[in-house]
Amino acid sequence: MKKVTVNLGHRSYDILIGQDLLAQTSRLFEQQSVGKRVFLIANTTVYDLYGEVVEQSLTDGGFDVFHILIPDGEPCKNLHTVENIYTYLIAQRADRRSTLAALGGGVTGDIVGFVAATFMRGVPYIQIPTTLLAQVDSSVGGKTGVNHRLGKNLIGAFYQPNLVCVDTNSLSTLPEREFFAGIYEVLKYGLIYDEAFWDWLVEHLDSIRRREPEAMETLISRCCEIKAEVTSLDEKESDLRRILNFGHTLGHALEAATEYGRFKHGEAVAYGMMAATHLSQRHGQIDQATCNRICDAIRSVGPLPEARSVPFQMLSDAIRHDKKREGDQTVFVLLKRIGQTLIASGFDNALLEEVWTQAVAPTSDS
Amino acid sequence: MKKVTVNLGHRSYDILIGQDLLAQTSRLFEQQSVGKRVFLIANTTVYDLYGEVVEQSLTDGGFDVFHILIPDGEPCKNLHTVENIYTYLIAQRADRRSTLAALGGGVTGDIVGFVAATFMRGVPYIQIPTTLLAQVDSSVGGKTGVNHRLGKNLIGAFYQPNLVCVDTNSLSTLPEREFFAGIYEVLKYGLIYDEAFWDWLVEHLDSIRRREPEAMETLISRCCEIKAEVTSLDEKESDLRRILNFGHTLGHALEAATEYGRFKHGEAVAYGMMAATHLSQRHGQIDQATCNRICDAIRSVGPLPEARSVPFQMLSDAIRHDKKREGDQTVFVLLKRIGQTLIASGFDNALLEEVWTQAVAPTSDS
Repeated sequence: MKKVTVNLGHRSYDILIGQDLLAQTSRLFEQQSVGKRVFLIANTTVYDLYGEVVEQSLTDGGFDVFHILIPDGEPCKNLHTVENIYTYLIAQRADRRSTLAALGGGVTGDIVGFVAATFMRGVPYIQIPTTLLAQVDSSVGGKTGVNHRLGKNLIGAFYQPNLVCVDTNSLSTLPEREFFAGIYEVLKYGLIYDEAFWDWLVEHLDSIRRREPEAMETLISRCCEIKAEVTSLDEKESDLRRILNFGHTLGHALEAATEYGRFKHGEAVAYGMMAATHLSQRHGQIDQATCNRICDAIRSVGPLPEARSVPFQMLSDAIRHDKKREGDQTVFVLLKRIGQTLIASGFDNALLEEVWTQAVAPTSDS
Repeated sequence: MKKVTVNLGHRSYDILIGQDLLAQTSRLFEQQSVGKRVFLIANTTVYDLYGEVVEQSLTDGGFDVFHILIPDGEPCKNLHTVENIYTYLIAQRADRRSTLAALGGGVTGDIVGFVAATFMRGVPYIQIPTTLLAQVDSSVGGKTGVNHRLGKNLIGAFYQPNLVCVDTNSLSTLPEREFFAGIYEVLKYGLIYDEAFWDWLVEHLDSIRRREPEAMETLISRCCEIKAEVTSLDEKESDLRRILNFGHTLGHALEAATEYGRFKHGEAVAYGMMAATHLSQRHGQIDQATCNRICDAIRSVGPLPEARSVPFQMLSDAIRHDKKREGDQTVFVLLKRIGQTLIASGFDNALLEEVWTQAVAPTSDS
């Protein structure tokens, strides 16, 4: 088992990564000073797979466990689901020492984190992410929130979990497309922060694609370390933390333009990263060969749903609603080289459309 | 103008208290590093009284001002109102540097604070409290939130404003009942923390009841200082901060039992404080004479709506849903003497009913 500590003063917490952690939930929870009442929140799919083992462990350990089932998928990540959870918690007389445990992917983590942040002005919560994306991204950094019908993640709060438990075994049931979607975010960490890790990833892509346990433990803990470093230094999103948004300006726009139904978040980010890579090249940062190597690596993970039929104008409209805008400027994270970024803005729409067209072309043909 | 600084590290902020501050809004805002777009949020009653002077000042100072009108009163303090504000903000393309300004009483402050805490994971906000209660209580301490249909303030977050501007002139339009409701909370600060301030209050009650400007400035700044001291030392509600809940256990229960329609918050707290005072006497802390003096002072502020027709059983049920419960225990703040408190729990229902009956009796007749 590996441990990554996120240093945030009195709100510091640990991320534990290893095999068979779900069956040890009770022992891991006991090490935290949380109350004996645990509200386990999951969607039905994940609950059917892992609910029993987690509940059994907690019950055996003397915890008083309730479970709350929520609907599956991004469309349910809204205030309505949040309200239903509040109502259940109140009806079951949850108090300020009750612990919320989020079992599932990023959507579940975001919703439960937001409920934990806003129920009785904050209750303890523990993340048990079961998707690769949630393990390397959504469960680290304190971002919680839900969507508004006019935009993704517009409602939310910064709130830290008390603990994150990552059981690498839970990846075995993850559908391939979902798994690959997580890998794109993994590649992002190498690109923005750590060239050696990027090289390791490209070199080990086959064993990663086969989800070999040792490779997964190394990969997840390195991603968590990077994100922990970035978010420890800069808890609220301002400067350093913005580098994590590499690929996200256009990625979010693609998701919004297609109403969150056609692309997995990681897939949209994959396109966004390729576009940002092309933009980095056009901005005179990286050379054409590096640009091609990066896009080829992203393309080699797995098949991406085609995106070139989405009119660029729709992305452009979506960007105008993006919360990462500052006044009238849309901000992009670019690559200075592999492992290092810079923040830039003021690009005209025609250039953005060009790099987008390159990114969504069937092969990297620039 | 008086200034009280709330020390919370990088989230410290100032409370400015004086006459004619509304007309100087622009100058006061400029001293903060907030964006040029200001969303002024108020209910129609308060907006009609003070909206123009605030907007004029901001517009003259080069701010880009939008206003959002919300319905009046506690029943509108819910997620529905919050959602409507989100929608307006998104439609007007508010970004992370947009500033929310809450103009009004505690309800407006609580709602706007919660929106500020949760819109785009936190935007700047400034409080301009116009009721005495909001000036001495709701706008200090970072508590924000809305009600759930099953309980008051169950949804919320801790979030600090960037600035609080208290214009004592705004008290001139406050209805008498609302003003008196604020005075009860003012008396609370003396009782729990500062015997000299309590003596000053009892001595100056006539000039206070006449809302004499000098008395109001002294009174508001001393209350803010006390609350700032208490919340600086203990930002999240745990030990010291709990003393601010003196009178609130039964006060909240009375409000809940009467569905927030019959009593002003301060009036309910007045009854709660008298009951807690009687409980302090029964618990062997204060003597009967002190208990009577305190209850007489509370009674002398103004007429309280009668509360003895509310069955105690209804309060007892409401307490069971109160978020200040810890496990099965209901916690009370008692007086050790005037100016000093202690926390106690484990009282049986019969005793609570007895002290409640004493508190709601037409005169203090124990």
